[in-house]
Amino acid sequence: MGGGIGSRFWPFSRESYPKQFLDFFGTGRSLLQQTFDRFNKIIPTENIYIVSNEKYASLIKQQLPELGENQILMEPTRRNTAPCIAYAAYHIYACNPDANIVVAPSDHLILKEEQFLQDVSQALEFVKNNKALVTLGIKPSRPETGYGYIQSSDRMIGEFTKVKTFTEKPNLELAKVFYESGEFFWNSGLFVWNIATILDAFHKFLPDITTRFDLGKDKFNTDGEQAFIHENFPYCPNISIDYGVMEKADNVYMLCVDFGWADLGTWGSLYDLAQKEESGNAPLKNKVLFYESGNNIVALEDPEKLAVIQGLDDYIVAESGNVLLICKKADEQRIKQYVADVQLKFGKEYN
Amino acid sequence: MGGGIGSRFWPFSRESYPKQFLDFFGTGRSLLQQTFDRFNKIIPTENIYIVSNEKYASLIKQQLPELGENQILMEPTRRNTAPCIAYAAYHIYACNPDANIVVAPSDHLILKEEQFLQDVSQALEFVKNNKALVTLGIKPSRPETGYGYIQSSDRMIGEFTKVKTFTEKPNLELAKVFYESGEFFWNSGLFVWNIATILDAFHKFLPDITTRFDLGKDKFNTDGEQAFIHENFPYCPNISIDYGVMEKADNVYMLCVDFGWADLGTWGSLYDLAQKEESGNAPLKNKVLFYESGNNIVALEDPEKLAVIQGLDDYIVAESGNVLLICKKADEQRIKQYVADVQLKFGKEYN
Repeated sequence: MGGGIGSRFWPFSRESYPKQFLDFFGTGRSLLQQTFDRFNKIIPTENIYIVSNEKYASLIKQQLPELGENQILMEPTRRNTAPCIAYAAYHIYACNPDANIVVAPSDHLILKEEQFLQDVSQALEFVKNNKALVTLGIKPSRPETGYGYIQSSDRMIGEFTKVKTFTEKPNLELAKVFYESGEFFWNSGLFVWNIATILDAFHKFLPDITTRFDLGKDKFNTDGEQAFIHENFPYCPNISIDYGVMEKADNVYMLCVDFGWADLGTWGSLYDLAQKEESGNAPLKNKVLFYESGNNIVALEDPEKLAVIQGLDDYIVAESGNVLLICKKADEQRIKQYVADVQLKFGKEYN
Repeated sequence: MGGGIGSRFWPFSRESYPKQFLDFFGTGRSLLQQTFDRFNKIIPTENIYIVSNEKYASLIKQQLPELGENQILMEPTRRNTAPCIAYAAYHIYACNPDANIVVAPSDHLILKEEQFLQDVSQALEFVKNNKALVTLGIKPSRPETGYGYIQSSDRMIGEFTKVKTFTEKPNLELAKVFYESGEFFWNSGLFVWNIATILDAFHKFLPDITTRFDLGKDKFNTDGEQAFIHENFPYCPNISIDYGVMEKADNVYMLCVDFGWADLGTWGSLYDLAQKEESGNAPLKNKVLFYESGNNIVALEDPEKLAVIQGLDDYIVAESGNVLLICKKADEQRIKQYVADVQLKFGKEYN
């Protein structure tokens, strides 16, 4: 899945160039490319599909030239993860009605790749033999309030735990309870299932989508697919797979994993992961002289640019293209509003 | 005089491109060009000389192509204003031993040009007939601590007051006394005198300079000037005209003027002059959205660049070339130190 805007990462992530296409850590590969590289070690290139907004098609082709034209599934409008995953499921079903599928966001960081690949392989093996919707639950390392949590039960099939509930992002107090209980795991948004299992679930819980898609069932993986999707996709409800399917289904299982995962969702999450100086400052890839300053994250697009920062604590200083952003780390959830305000006041060229 | 580095205006003002060559207000003309334009209304082009460090010669030629080669007087090393003014005086004497001279910094802002030209003309007329060293004293509009002051006496020749003393920059308490007394005026660094009068004063108070320059008297305004200056100028003492001559001479007169003058010496002085929003923020030439922020000055080199600033009060945010500076306005006197630290740590390319 690579269709998000990543507006909480503005001004680095722009609607015209979202975060999944960016190389945040200066490794030479964007988050999307890293995600592809990672899976490509266990999944053949021709079995990897990217679902994204059609306006990012050329960016994806540019970053992943090894993909065939029919491996980029283009959404004509922005919906949420449920329609995105349904579209891919129908397409893959037309290619192979026995497929086992991993669904993954394209903007996550995974530090222990070996462990990750092992866990994914194990889950793929599991769903081949069990009509289960599998989610990878991350063992929490701190009482994080930025992620949703999954509560495990004591019913197991092998190493797979039946899920009791999905929860929204908790407040700090609740997050501490979750963390200490040992029963709760971070919801990574990484799913594994057999094609038949997920299509059953869509039919049961999101008939608005399946009724439409079933009418064009013979169009998927043909020349008629794009026109069909263009006409019908916009009618799909704007709903996440968690809310639309996972929270309702009674065959959801979790594999508890620990492969150095992080959702690079916000500047704060990037700060948490970044290398920090003794002062707690994280100059992402620039030379920065700090005076009386601590716990800032500084990211300037041009790695040759130097910053001198005095008298700032707990700020984001981010510069990219035609925008400089300076705001308190604690207020980063307001960045989306800033982007909207800027667009209203100065037009779309800053989005 | 256009040889300063203006390091208190870093990163806009660089050693390689000091502030006098910059167009701070987006008018289309640099401070140097504005100074030239202003004087050119009453002084013919061929009578205007720029004294500057030799490394800025090509910048000056570029910005003022109307000047002849021999109108740019190049200092081989950085001294202070006394050697600079002495050099120009010897050169001008060789061109015209009866000249009346206005000495002006090239980085000042003057808002009431008509009044300025009238005052300068009046002073030129005065020094033609009086062996006086004239300084233009600015009627203070506030108890400013950033300028030196000149104390007037009650001895007058026409509208010209004999000067009692020159003072260093006062603290706020003293500045208030100065301001309320009506006796003290800002030292603008604008001087007017006849060539004979200033050369007499140099001989009297700075024989270190004149002894040397007199040896090469016949070299000035000839092909031999540059070589002579190259050899001898470095031996001049590093001393200001105020300290070296004006404070010692007993023929110093002041014309009290009021032509909307400001020394663009620091970010703070620029802030004081800039147009401000209701919040007290001064976005110099950029689009800036401020949230919970007040009394900041924001200057980004690219006028198309937009900034979003949240939770900042009384800061300088300045970006130019390969440097971004964020620091408290109250600590701007430390900028010189930052520049030195950056050079020490990261090399000269950021100066």
